[in-house]
Amino acid sequence: MIVVLKKDTTIDQRQDLIEWIKSLGLDVHLSEGKFQTVLGLIGDTASIDTELIEGLSIVENVTRITDQFKKANGKFHSDDSLFDIHGAKIGDGNFVMIAGPCSVESEEQICEIAQSVKKAGANMLRGGAFKPRTSPYDFQGLHADGIELLLKAKKLTGLPIVTELMDISQLKYFDDVDVIQVGARNMQNMELLKQLGRERKPVLLKRGLANTLKELLMSAEYIMAGGNEQVILCERGIRTFETTTRNTCDIGAVPVLKELSHLPVIVDPSHACGIARYVKPLTLAATAAGADGIIVEVHNNPEKAMCDGPQSLKPEQFADLVTAVDKVREAING
Amino acid sequence: MIVVLKKDTTIDQRQDLIEWIKSLGLDVHLSEGKFQTVLGLIGDTASIDTELIEGLSIVENVTRITDQFKKANGKFHSDDSLFDIHGAKIGDGNFVMIAGPCSVESEEQICEIAQSVKKAGANMLRGGAFKPRTSPYDFQGLHADGIELLLKAKKLTGLPIVTELMDISQLKYFDDVDVIQVGARNMQNMELLKQLGRERKPVLLKRGLANTLKELLMSAEYIMAGGNEQVILCERGIRTFETTTRNTCDIGAVPVLKELSHLPVIVDPSHACGIARYVKPLTLAATAAGADGIIVEVHNNPEKAMCDGPQSLKPEQFADLVTAVDKVREAING
Amino acid sequence: MIVVLKKDTTIDQRQDLIEWIKSLGLDVHLSEGKFQTVLGLIGDTASIDTELIEGLSIVENVTRITDQFKKANGKFHSDDSLFDIHGAKIGDGNFVMIAGPCSVESEEQICEIAQSVKKAGANMLRGGAFKPRTSPYDFQGLHADGIELLLKAKKLTGLPIVTELMDISQLKYFDDVDVIQVGARNMQNMELLKQLGRERKPVLLKRGLANTLKELLMSAEYIMAGGNEQVILCERGIRTFETTTRNTCDIGAVPVLKELSHLPVIVDPSHACGIARYVKPLTLAATAAGADGIIVEVHNNPEKAMCDGPQSLKPEQFADLVTAVDKVREAING
Amino acid sequence: MIVVLKKDTTIDQRQDLIEWIKSLGLDVHLSEGKFQTVLGLIGDTASIDTELIEGLSIVENVTRITDQFKKANGKFHSDDSLFDIHGAKIGDGNFVMIAGPCSVESEEQICEIAQSVKKAGANMLRGGAFKPRTSPYDFQGLHADGIELLLKAKKLTGLPIVTELMDISQLKYFDDVDVIQVGARNMQNMELLKQLGRERKPVLLKRGLANTLKELLMSAEYIMAGGNEQVILCERGIRTFETTTRNTCDIGAVPVLKELSHLPVIVDPSHACGIARYVKPLTLAATAAGADGIIVEVHNNPEKAMCDGPQSLKPEQFADLVTAVDKVREAING
Repeated sequence: MIVVLKKDTTIDQRQDLIEWIKSLGLDVHLSEGKFQTVLGLIGDTASIDTELIEGLSIVENVTRITDQFKKANGKFHSDDSLFDIHGAKIGDGNFVMIAGPCSVESEEQICEIAQSVKKAGANMLRGGAFKPRTSPYDFQGLHADGIELLLKAKKLTGLPIVTELMDISQLKYFDDVDVIQVGARNMQNMELLKQLGRERKPVLLKRGLANTLKELLMSAEYIMAGGNEQVILCERGIRTFETTTRNTCDIGAVPVLKELSHLPVIVDPSHACGIARYVKPLTLAATAAGADGIIVEVHNNPEKAMCDGPQSLKPEQFADLVTAVDKVREAING
Repeated sequence: MIVVLKKDTTIDQRQDLIEWIKSLGLDVHLSEGKFQTVLGLIGDTASIDTELIEGLSIVENVTRITDQFKKANGKFHSDDSLFDIHGAKIGDGNFVMIAGPCSVESEEQICEIAQSVKKAGANMLRGGAFKPRTSPYDFQGLHADGIELLLKAKKLTGLPIVTELMDISQLKYFDDVDVIQVGARNMQNMELLKQLGRERKPVLLKRGLANTLKELLMSAEYIMAGGNEQVILCERGIRTFETTTRNTCDIGAVPVLKELSHLPVIVDPSHACGIARYVKPLTLAATAAGADGIIVEVHNNPEKAMCDGPQSLKPEQFADLVTAVDKVREAING
Repeated sequence: MIVVLKKDTTIDQRQDLIEWIKSLGLDVHLSEGKFQTVLGLIGDTASIDTELIEGLSIVENVTRITDQFKKANGKFHSDDSLFDIHGAKIGDGNFVMIAGPCSVESEEQICEIAQSVKKAGANMLRGGAFKPRTSPYDFQGLHADGIELLLKAKKLTGLPIVTELMDISQLKYFDDVDVIQVGARNMQNMELLKQLGRERKPVLLKRGLANTLKELLMSAEYIMAGGNEQVILCERGIRTFETTTRNTCDIGAVPVLKELSHLPVIVDPSHACGIARYVKPLTLAATAAGADGIIVEVHNNPEKAMCDGPQSLKPEQFADLVTAVDKVREAING
Repeated sequence: MIVVLKKDTTIDQRQDLIEWIKSLGLDVHLSEGKFQTVLGLIGDTASIDTELIEGLSIVENVTRITDQFKKANGKFHSDDSLFDIHGAKIGDGNFVMIAGPCSVESEEQICEIAQSVKKAGANMLRGGAFKPRTSPYDFQGLHADGIELLLKAKKLTGLPIVTELMDISQLKYFDDVDVIQVGARNMQNMELLKQLGRERKPVLLKRGLANTLKELLMSAEYIMAGGNEQVILCERGIRTFETTTRNTCDIGAVPVLKELSHLPVIVDPSHACGIARYVKPLTLAATAAGADGIIVEVHNNPEKAMCDGPQSLKPEQFADLVTAVDKVREAING
C-alpha cells in the first residue's frame, strides 16, 4: 500500500502516522521526493481499511498494491478450482452447459424443457422460482412451489438444478437445490453473502450491472471468508450507454477473471444481450475466450408463444448451440 | 404503450395479438404505416409486462408511454407529501437537516455528536450500526449495540434517528428507530422493499449507484404498493468515469424527482463526493436546486483524528453549513 | 415517428402541429387514449429533426421508429458490402487481418514488422504516423515522414496500408495510403467526416469511447452521404467502470452491427484491452462472434524492449494468433 | 511516479530499468517489500510517457502521483486567472452571464435576442454558426454568414461574442470573434487544440461527454502549451445511464476544477439537461457551488414556436434567472 502525504505535513504528524501503522504489524518505507513524501506499507495490508487512511487530513491519496481478496485470489492457489456437482464438473478444463427457462411455470413446462435440454447436451438445469422484477406489479415467480417443480424435473432427468435465492428467509426451501444463484442486483447484498458463506454448497455469483471485476471477487471473498469455497463467477452483462442490447456482455471478463482467480468463470449470454438471436454469437465468443461454461435460457411451448422470453432459445436452437460450442472448444483446445 | 410490429407479420398473427391484448382489458388502436404497423394500447397498462410483449417473435419494439409507478407518481397526487417525524417535518416546503457520524462507535461519541449537531441546527440524527463494506475484513459496525447507543443519543437530545437496515432479519432491532434507511446497494433488494412495505414508518431510500431515477421510483413503488406511503427519496451520487470524486452527485435529480413524484427528495453530499471539502458546495447546490433536505456526515473526536472519515465535517464546519444553507434557502424562496 | 402530446394540449394546438407535419410531406395518424394523445408520423421521417419536435411546448416525448441512417442501413441493401483493397478483400465472408506497430518509428522497424506479419498471414499493414496523445508532452508521431516509411514498407511487401488521419489539413499526405483511419476521439468530428465523404477510398471508422452503435452508424452515414460508400466499422472498446482492462471490448457489437448494416465490421482487441496477453482470447471471441476482420498491434525489436507497447504482440505471437483464428473460423463456418 | 515491478523480475532487469530512468534525469527510490518491489521516480515526471513504462514486461503497474498538466495546474499559480474580454470579466470573483440562441438564424433573430439578453443582464452573447449535428440530414448552421450576423449583433449591443469552431479550416472567419468555443465532441481533437494554442484569444473549452476532469485539464494544457493561456473551462453535462435528462450536469466539477486549476469554470445547464424547465434549478445550483459563470440558451420568436429548442429559455425567463442568480451569489458571498 502506497500512501502519499500532503506537502504541508509536519515531521511530527508523519511520525505519528508511521508509528500507528507499525502498531498494526506493518513495516513502513519512507521515500522523500522533491514534491511529496511517500510511505510504502510493507506486510499483510489486506486487513487495513483504505478509507480510514484516506480520511486523514495529512494524506493526499492511497494506492493499494496488493489485492484485498485472498481466498478468491489466483496468486495463492497453484491450481484452478474444480467443482463436481453431482456429476456435472466445472472448472480446470471442464465445461458446463446450464440451460432452462427464465421462470418455472408448471410441472409440464419444466419437465419438458429439462428433458429436451438434457437430450441436447445440457448438464445442469436452471429455472427461476423467486424472480427479481423491476415492478411490484410484474409476475414474481412461483416461490417454494417453483422449487418443488424443479426438484421433480431433477428427479426425472438427473440434472442438478440451479435457482436464485433473493433473501436469507428463503434458504429453508433450498435444501435440495444443487447450486444457489445470487443475482446481479444482490451481488453486494453483504448479509446474504455472509449467510451463504455458512452453507456448504456451490454458489453461482452474478456480477452486478455496474460492478468491477475486483468488486465481484470481493463479493466472492465474502462467501469464501465464511468457509464456503465453492463459488462460480458469472459475467451476465454490464450497463453501458449502448441501447441495441439490454446490457453489454464483457467477454474480456473471462480471461481477466481466470487470471486473477482460480474460481470457474461462466457467461450468461441470454441476460447479457436480452435478444435470442444474439445468444449464439455471444456464446461462441465466450467459449473462444476460454469460459468454463454457459448458462442460457431455453423455453418450450410453441402453443403459447405469447409467453416466450425475448431472450430464450427454442430447444432445437439450443441443440444447435451445443454442437457449435463443441466445435469451437475443439478449435481452441485441439 | 406503443407496440411496433415486424414487417413480415401476417394479418392472422396481428389479429391474435390484438385479441390477446383486448382480453387483458385494454383497447388497441391500429395504425398501418408504409414501413411498419404500430399498435397503440389504451387503458391501464401498468400491470402489463413489457418484456413479455417484447418477447413475441412478431414484435420489433415496445415503448411505454405512461409510467409504471402509480403511488409514487406526482401526476396522481395534487399535493407534495409532508411527513412529520416526531417533530422533524420534511416535504412540502419543509427542509430537514440530518447529521451524524458514518458509524456509531461508542456512547460518548454518538452522544457528543448528537448534542453538537442539535445545537448547530440539525433536526435528525444519523449513524450506522449495520455497515455495508466492500471487504469482509473491514469493520462491519456495532450491530444491535449500535442501535442501542443511537437510542441513548435520541433520549438525550430528542432528535429522531435514521439508521440503515441491511437485511430483513435485522428488523427486530428497529422498533424504536424513527426512519429506516435502505442503502444504495439494496435499492433493488426486492424482498427487503416488500417487507418494508408492511412496516408503518418512514423509509429513506437511497438511489443505487448505477440506477435511473425511474428505477428509484419503481423501488419506492415496491414499498408503497405494500401500504407504507412514507418514502423519502435520496440522491447519493452515481457511478461515472470521473475519478476525482468517489461518485458524481446528480443535482439535476432534485428537480426531476420533484416533478415526477410527490415524495420528498434529499441529497447526501458526503457519500456522493467522499471528500469533506466538497460537502459545502454540493450542499448549497442541492439546496439551490430545491432539495427538501440534506443528510450529512459529521464527526467529533479531535483526539483520534486517525479514524475520521475522509468525507465527514467537524461540528464547527457543520454549524457553518447550516447558516449557509439558511441563506441560500432565503435567496431562492424570499 | 411517434409523438406523444401533453395532457393539456388544446385541439387547436394539436391541429396546428398536424398541419405543419403534413406540410413536410408526411401523413399523421391520430390516436386518442384515456391519458394522452399520440400522433403517428407516416412517411420518410429521416429528414425530420427530432429535437425540433421535442422542443414544442405541447409535446411530451418523441420516439423514432425508423433509423435515421439510410446508406449504412442493412435493410436497404440486400447483400453485405465487399471491398477489395488492392487484393485484400473484406466483407461478405472475407476476413481481413491487419497488423503492425502502434507508431512508425524508423524504416528498419516498419519494414521488418511488415515482412514478419506478411509472412505470418496478415493481409494489410497498420502503423501510426499522426498520433493522438492525451498529453501535449508525449511523442506525437513522425507525421508525413511516417507515411513515407509506411509506403516503403508497402512497396517492399505489397501489403496495403492503413493509417490514421487526425485533421483535414493532413489529407495531402494520404494520396497513396490505401485505407484512412478515423480514430475513436474523432468519430464525431463532423467536418472531418464530411471531407472524407468527398474522398474515394476506404475509411476505417472507429467507434467512440462512449458512443452507441447507432451513433457509429450515423457517423458512417456522414461519410456515405458524401458519396464515399466504402466504410469499415471498427469496435475498439468502450469506456466502462472496469479498471483491469483499459476499455471494455463490446463483442456483442459484432452481431448487432452486422444485422443493422451491410458494412464490414472489424475488432481492435489491442486498444480495447490495452494488455497483450488478453489480445488472443478477445481476437478469438471476435472471430467466433462473426467479425469480418481484426486489427492488431505487433512490434518487433527485442533489443529495445523498453519501447514495446503494453498491448503489442511479438511477431511469433501474431503467427500463432493467425493459426488460431483460422481454426475458429473453420469451426464456425465448416 | 510509482512503478511496481513484477515478482519474478531479476536484479539485472531491475538495474537496467533504474539506469534508464536515471538517464532521463530522474532519481529513483527503491523499496523492496515482501511481495513486491516498488520504484519511486523523483523529479519532473510530466514528460514521461506512462504507457511506455507500463509496457515493460517486468512492470506490474504504474501510478502517477503528480499531475501531467502544468500550465493549467492551480498548484503552480498563486492566483486565480482573470480574463477581461472587452469589458466582460471572468474569473477571480467575477461572474459572467453568457446567453443567446442555439443557432443563429437571421439578422432579426440574433439582434432581437442580443438586445433582450443585454437588457436582462447578460454580459456576453452566444450563438451557433457552425453546428455539430448527429445526422448529416439535420440543419448544419449558417456558417460564415452566421458569424457575420453575430458581429452585427455585437456592433448593435456591444456584447462580446462566443461561437463554436468545428475545424481549423474555419478559423479564417473567427478574426472578430471574441471567444472561440470548442465543443464537447472536439475536446480531444488534438490538432484543433494545438492550433488554438497559437491564437491569442480566449477559448471556451467544453468537457467531453465521457471525459474526466483531468482529461479536460490535459486538453486545456494542449492549448496553453502553445502559449495561449486564456482558457475557460466549461462543464456541460456528461453521459450517464439517466434518461430523464439528456445528460447529467456534474455540479461537483465546479469545486474540483477550481481546486485543481486557476482557470475560470463555467456551467452550461441548457445542454446538460436539454429541458428548459430544469435550467433554472441547475443554474442556481452551479452558482451556489461557486461557478464563475453560466452559458445559457435563450430564444425569442413567439410567432414560430415550432423552432424553439426544447432547452431554450424565453427572454423573460432569462431576466428572472439573472435576478435569482444575483440573490444566490449574494447569499454565498455576502
